[in-house]
Amino acid sequence: MVTVEALVERVHAGDLRLHELETAADGDADLATAARQQVVIGRADSVENGDLDSIANYGFPADRAESNIENMIGAIQVPIGVAGPVEIDGEAIDEETVLPMATTEGALVASINRGCSSINAAGGATARVTKRGMTRAPVFSVAGVAEAEALVSWVRDHEAQLAATAESTTNHGELLDVTPYAVGNTVFLRFRYDTKDAMGMNMATIATGEAAELIEAETTASLVALSGNLCADKKPAAINATEGRGRSVTADVTIPRAVVEERLDTTPEAIAEINTKKNHIGSAKAGSMGFNAQVANVVGAMFLATGQDEAQVVEGANAITTAEVTSDGDLYCAVSLASLEVGTVGGGTGLPTQSEALELLGVAGGGDPAGANADALAEAIAVGSLAGELSLLAALGSRNLTSAHAALGRWRPDRRRTLAIVGVCRINQW
Amino acid sequence: MVTVEALVERVHAGDLRLHELETAADGDADLATAARQQVVIGRADSVENGDLDSIANYGFPADRAESNIENMIGAIQVPIGVAGPVEIDGEAIDEETVLPMATTEGALVASINRGCSSINAAGGATARVTKRGMTRAPVFSVAGVAEAEALVSWVRDHEAQLAATAESTTNHGELLDVTPYAVGNTVFLRFRYDTKDAMGMNMATIATGEAAELIEAETTASLVALSGNLCADKKPAAINATEGRGRSVTADVTIPRAVVEERLDTTPEAIAEINTKKNHIGSAKAGSMGFNAQVANVVGAMFLATGQDEAQVVEGANAITTAEVTSDGDLYCAVSLASLEVGTVGGGTGLPTQSEALELLGVAGGGDPAGANADALAEAIAVGSLAGELSLLAALGSRNLTSAHAALGRWRPDRRRTLAIVGVCRINQW
Amino acid sequence: MVTVEALVERVHAGDLRLHELETAADGDADLATAARQQVVIGRADSVENGDLDSIANYGFPADRAESNIENMIGAIQVPIGVAGPVEIDGEAIDEETVLPMATTEGALVASINRGCSSINAAGGATARVTKRGMTRAPVFSVAGVAEAEALVSWVRDHEAQLAATAESTTNHGELLDVTPYAVGNTVFLRFRYDTKDAMGMNMATIATGEAAELIEAETTASLVALSGNLCADKKPAAINATEGRGRSVTADVTIPRAVVEERLDTTPEAIAEINTKKNHIGSAKAGSMGFNAQVANVVGAMFLATGQDEAQVVEGANAITTAEVTSDGDLYCAVSLASLEVGTVGGGTGLPTQSEALELLGVAGGGDPAGANADALAEAIAVGSLAGELSLLAALGSRNLTSAHAALGRWRPDRRRTLAIVGVCRINQW
Amino acid sequence: MVTVEALVERVHAGDLRLHELETAADGDADLATAARQQVVIGRADSVENGDLDSIANYGFPADRAESNIENMIGAIQVPIGVAGPVEIDGEAIDEETVLPMATTEGALVASINRGCSSINAAGGATARVTKRGMTRAPVFSVAGVAEAEALVSWVRDHEAQLAATAESTTNHGELLDVTPYAVGNTVFLRFRYDTKDAMGMNMATIATGEAAELIEAETTASLVALSGNLCADKKPAAINATEGRGRSVTADVTIPRAVVEERLDTTPEAIAEINTKKNHIGSAKAGSMGFNAQVANVVGAMFLATGQDEAQVVEGANAITTAEVTSDGDLYCAVSLASLEVGTVGGGTGLPTQSEALELLGVAGGGDPAGANADALAEAIAVGSLAGELSLLAALGSRNLTSAHAALGRWRPDRRRTLAIVGVCRINQW
Repeated sequence: MVTVEALVERVHAGDLRLHELETAADGDADLATAARQQVVIGRADSVENGDLDSIANYGFPADRAESNIENMIGAIQVPIGVAGPVEIDGEAIDEETVLPMATTEGALVASINRGCSSINAAGGATARVTKRGMTRAPVFSVAGVAEAEALVSWVRDHEAQLAATAESTTNHGELLDVTPYAVGNTVFLRFRYDTKDAMGMNMATIATGEAAELIEAETTASLVALSGNLCADKKPAAINATEGRGRSVTADVTIPRAVVEERLDTTPEAIAEINTKKNHIGSAKAGSMGFNAQVANVVGAMFLATGQDEAQVVEGANAITTAEVTSDGDLYCAVSLASLEVGTVGGGTGLPTQSEALELLGVAGGGDPAGANADALAEAIAVGSLAGELSLLAALGSRNLTSAHAALGRWRPDRRRTLAIVGVCRINQW
Repeated sequence: MVTVEALVERVHAGDLRLHELETAADGDADLATAARQQVVIGRADSVENGDLDSIANYGFPADRAESNIENMIGAIQVPIGVAGPVEIDGEAIDEETVLPMATTEGALVASINRGCSSINAAGGATARVTKRGMTRAPVFSVAGVAEAEALVSWVRDHEAQLAATAESTTNHGELLDVTPYAVGNTVFLRFRYDTKDAMGMNMATIATGEAAELIEAETTASLVALSGNLCADKKPAAINATEGRGRSVTADVTIPRAVVEERLDTTPEAIAEINTKKNHIGSAKAGSMGFNAQVANVVGAMFLATGQDEAQVVEGANAITTAEVTSDGDLYCAVSLASLEVGTVGGGTGLPTQSEALELLGVAGGGDPAGANADALAEAIAVGSLAGELSLLAALGSRNLTSAHAALGRWRPDRRRTLAIVGVCRINQW
Repeated sequence: MVTVEALVERVHAGDLRLHELETAADGDADLATAARQQVVIGRADSVENGDLDSIANYGFPADRAESNIENMIGAIQVPIGVAGPVEIDGEAIDEETVLPMATTEGALVASINRGCSSINAAGGATARVTKRGMTRAPVFSVAGVAEAEALVSWVRDHEAQLAATAESTTNHGELLDVTPYAVGNTVFLRFRYDTKDAMGMNMATIATGEAAELIEAETTASLVALSGNLCADKKPAAINATEGRGRSVTADVTIPRAVVEERLDTTPEAIAEINTKKNHIGSAKAGSMGFNAQVANVVGAMFLATGQDEAQVVEGANAITTAEVTSDGDLYCAVSLASLEVGTVGGGTGLPTQSEALELLGVAGGGDPAGANADALAEAIAVGSLAGELSLLAALGSRNLTSAHAALGRWRPDRRRTLAIVGVCRINQW
Repeated sequence: MVTVEALVERVHAGDLRLHELETAADGDADLATAARQQVVIGRADSVENGDLDSIANYGFPADRAESNIENMIGAIQVPIGVAGPVEIDGEAIDEETVLPMATTEGALVASINRGCSSINAAGGATARVTKRGMTRAPVFSVAGVAEAEALVSWVRDHEAQLAATAESTTNHGELLDVTPYAVGNTVFLRFRYDTKDAMGMNMATIATGEAAELIEAETTASLVALSGNLCADKKPAAINATEGRGRSVTADVTIPRAVVEERLDTTPEAIAEINTKKNHIGSAKAGSMGFNAQVANVVGAMFLATGQDEAQVVEGANAITTAEVTSDGDLYCAVSLASLEVGTVGGGTGLPTQSEALELLGVAGGGDPAGANADALAEAIAVGSLAGELSLLAALGSRNLTSAHAALGRWRPDRRRTLAIVGVCRINQW
């Protein structure tokens, strides 16, 4: 029988490379993981106690992660908490829901929780997905602008054929449109797909690859790269902030003045003013694409909890928060996320803990109709983001932070300002 | 003795709120966590089997996470793998190191691993932190531009006093400079600190809060918000991409033509061309701040492994990749990350699994001199990013993806293009 | 009979306001202009000699400018020179053409001239308009996101009716599409029109105003402003740089290595390198939307010469220059202007000097087919821009500037570097 | 004696090139201009009547423009009107001033005029230059990041020597600071100068050229280009919008509610709302750097009138407009232009008509102290911009446009909406 020791020895002897351990262990992924741990510990004398026991203490069979990781040595554990429940009036989700959030930033969950409580006191938040579409934009090389123009014409004349070709690779995906962008002898074609409940980057890539082969076969264009950065995946890009990617989703709420004053300890006017000076003017002066206070915090924590791609927090931060005093003197507040890339199937969503978090939200697996679960997840994240904006803007607006926090034993007095940053204002308010 | 059942009942009865469970459990955080799980399961009929056993199976005492999470229900587990080892010639780290990466995106670790192998074949990568400074930018309100000008003058005349005041709140932090930005009757002051081995957002916030009080006391300005979005934290903003935040760090390498051809299956010319058309022209046309291929993937995975703030992946994506053919026909490639916000103390770095990942890198805890460990972490992430760029650009350049991947059992043939996106080209190359 | 003196006296007496002079002068616009001059001179003791004789010396009847200016006091005279002729292989212009340029920046015309000469030596430049459409984006207010979604649906369902309504206001304009953007309770609708030979801002505004009335009548939406800044007119905006506005136009050329060496005194490699480091990497680091060297110089000078709107130079600067060494060792260079807003009818195009400059280009008035003249103007500006890029990149590449310029009597030796900036390299080369 | 005919013949015979005409005409620039006209007319059969009489009718000796133009064929005439007078409470200009504006956009001057009238009714506008500095950023090449770091250190250690070297080339310029930006093996050094009353691009270029030679002599760095696009000149770039270039200048005013209602026909609330939804949210969604309504219109028209560089309208558009209702119910409105590049000496400022426009403003030539005239010009443009914002926002706010404009004979009814765009609301209001 193969043992950890035997495997480690073979690696040391130069017989095996780290990524060959699964095969050498006859497919026993846990054995391979254990052996790999030993090897890396042996090489790094900086590991205290000579072990990685916490990392090694993962709670699922290693082969369940085989399509998620290579060279596995265990798992990272990130604490998960819940905010809410919060009342969501969405198109795809219409109920009171708790929001699972995995984070290491203290006070974040408390902050969102406080925002949820204000939303509930206002009767809940509305949420809508206003645009859908995962994109992939290959880049082609042509001889010059005359040929670029010809390529663009060809694409416009063959959209149906491109769609048929692209969709031949997928059971669920649907090509929505192809938008050409020409720069000198370079042409970018941005393919946009409805990928239903999948985040869809893989689906879009495979389908676009097939379409790109057709283009190469039928035109003089030559494919330079299947991704030409006009997609744009995992980069802060105006094309996403303006035109959207994944889901464009908005959550909004009108909070009665009394609720603002009692629960958020401030006024609608103060929140509107801070929103203007910080989120609008400050962001404008910073050359920012994020006109919000802490949307990325919520996107990051809910992405991590639900098995989304953590690198796509980048696009998730493309959000605009608006706040105004209504003619009745109440507070209208909204958060619009332009490019939230979410899925409830594929990627990390099938891992045990992540899958449970999706279940908690009631959105695990494929939706009915297809796409409804990913829509629901987007709506839930938007409402969580709205809660975060309200809580933080309110904390900045009230500024009576000291005494309350000092009373909260485990928070040191000097953390009071920090807490204000994520929006926990008074301990009795969350 | 308090039991889970008793606690759950009190919550159901309306006696207790979720966040009061720790107190009600006499400080037994694990008991509170268990009770909270039961409550949320009870409320969500969408939880299959009626349990969250995987989430509940966390591997550390709940009170170790008390400054990281509220309303804890357990932990999310994310698989972690290793890329490398890779030879790093840095200022703060100068050795062969494995790179721990926690991710759910299949093929990512393999891709980085392949890049590391090319870097090693070239004798290793150089890395340098070229700028340091964590920022916080409060926003003040004044009567108009005349008063704005007076405030800016006051700040310029009192930098020493501001520094003394700000630094009075911290043992390690140092105020480097204060830059004013005036817009109408609004003035933003961007405070920049050396925060040593801490990521420093908290330290900077507390110190700036103290300085803001001085400003309010001594001038006519009124503080609107301690963060005015010119910081800019967790938003894609040009001020970070241009002026830097946290660490600005570059990694580069010159890879001999033979290595490019043999290990990366392409040519220096092909990589330079793809880099120009995709990372430069494509990003330019997209209105992007990220002129790279997949830096956020590496930043995200190494942030998650080492306990960084996942929402700060946003700024981590502000990176420029350059590639050129040298006069000797070799490949010079570099990645410059403008605003990588890292720490080796505080935040999530003290959690058990995260701490072990830092140990594996040899950068756990405070460095000697102070700041050296965070510098080293930045250099390691930069080299990992460089590996990722090389691997992906090469995969796009070689395009001979099909047969090799088909041979790799656990990867479905139709994933071949996807894999190309993260840069795994040939199975025998990683 | 009304005299200047009588009019001036009435203004001094408070009887007349400045803008009422035309009426008071019985419609004699020149008389009104003369009187207005006297009034403003009388009020400003800073006018030397007590006259504005040069401004007063305008060369056209004042009433020819009545739809271009109010409160006229005369004309500003800007020197105009010619670059070229340059051989243009365009879709709408296919001949050797001189380029009229009005500017006060010394060396600019010479620089463009040198570029033209290189283009001619390469057999001419190709130019193509790759996209057309003038946009106007009104902003509407709705109750919240649910209503925003309803508005967007209504628009999608009524595109034909919107087109009919919008087009009812214009003889030539054609509504191409309407793109909705939702942010909270705010909805922007970007209307895009084919405005033929007119720059089209007025046409688009009037047509969109009519459509906006229909929307207000048929939906719950309320118009906030006819321009909501997503147009985006006269502002630097990614939406223009990415999606285009007015004409998207590219010019390119392949210049034989021998020509680069002899006429531009440098090598294809040097130009490609400078283009990468300056226009791509430098612009990327600057957070720029202009990835070029001096396109705005050419756009500005040709706009001024041909009666375009000088404030739209802003969008004209949204251009990307690319340069690469071909497999034959020659230089391929292209300039792609994303949002060049030009017209050959309307605006300032009918003024005497501007009209003559259009005649010189062969594009005065409406084209055949409609739109062809504005296309031709766009192609000519693109080729002029290409000439400017070549000349400046070459000058930076050669750097042998001193002696030649010193030989050029009227340029002081210490202007050599300045000249390099616009690209005049050697006196015998232009 | 040399005649036009003789010169034309020599050009046709291939004896002379166009730019050699001045020399061939024994320095008679007017003769050369006349001959050049004949040549270009002869080549372009598209010139109606076979003449360019209007262009030829320039009102100054051609040799006065010799440092402004090459290949001169005459002058373009642009109508100039005046807005105001407007009361300015600036640091450098403190009086009632008319604003000269050269434009071909009908209704623009009227619009600004109306804004000026509102400002006057409020007691005038305040204006301040809050930052000064013309920049030039050469780009250097080094071996890699280790050498880049060394270069940056060298620069930091030799600021005094760099200043002495740079300033040796200029009588007035002063080096304020040098900011390094490193990207891979490329280093940009942004030199910032106080250039007093000159716009300063030439001065900064020459001085930086000298400093660059020092750097090349003393370090291993090699100059790639004297301008590396981080300057950033004539490109829309966040570095200018955030950090400033030329003058950063703000104008503001508080307008009593009664004045807003009577003169602007709207309310403070309406203006604040439109400003938020159009200038802030709309611009945010557009990925814009211009958070204003029509600042470029004013910058363009005043630049053209006063001999500024028309291509620098690009940076002039980097402006943020803010509007809010004060606690007294009045309207506070401000415009902050980040990067207004102006001069009162050099460039086109010495041409006859332009010089007169500067005289009208009282800012011709060098100021006392040096820089005061350029400051004053910046303040005047800022106040003009403020007037434009007020007028346009008000017009959008009132929307009662039809009847009044129909009464205005020379404006066609269907132009009403167009007019609203630049802000002329009611004929009796300007």
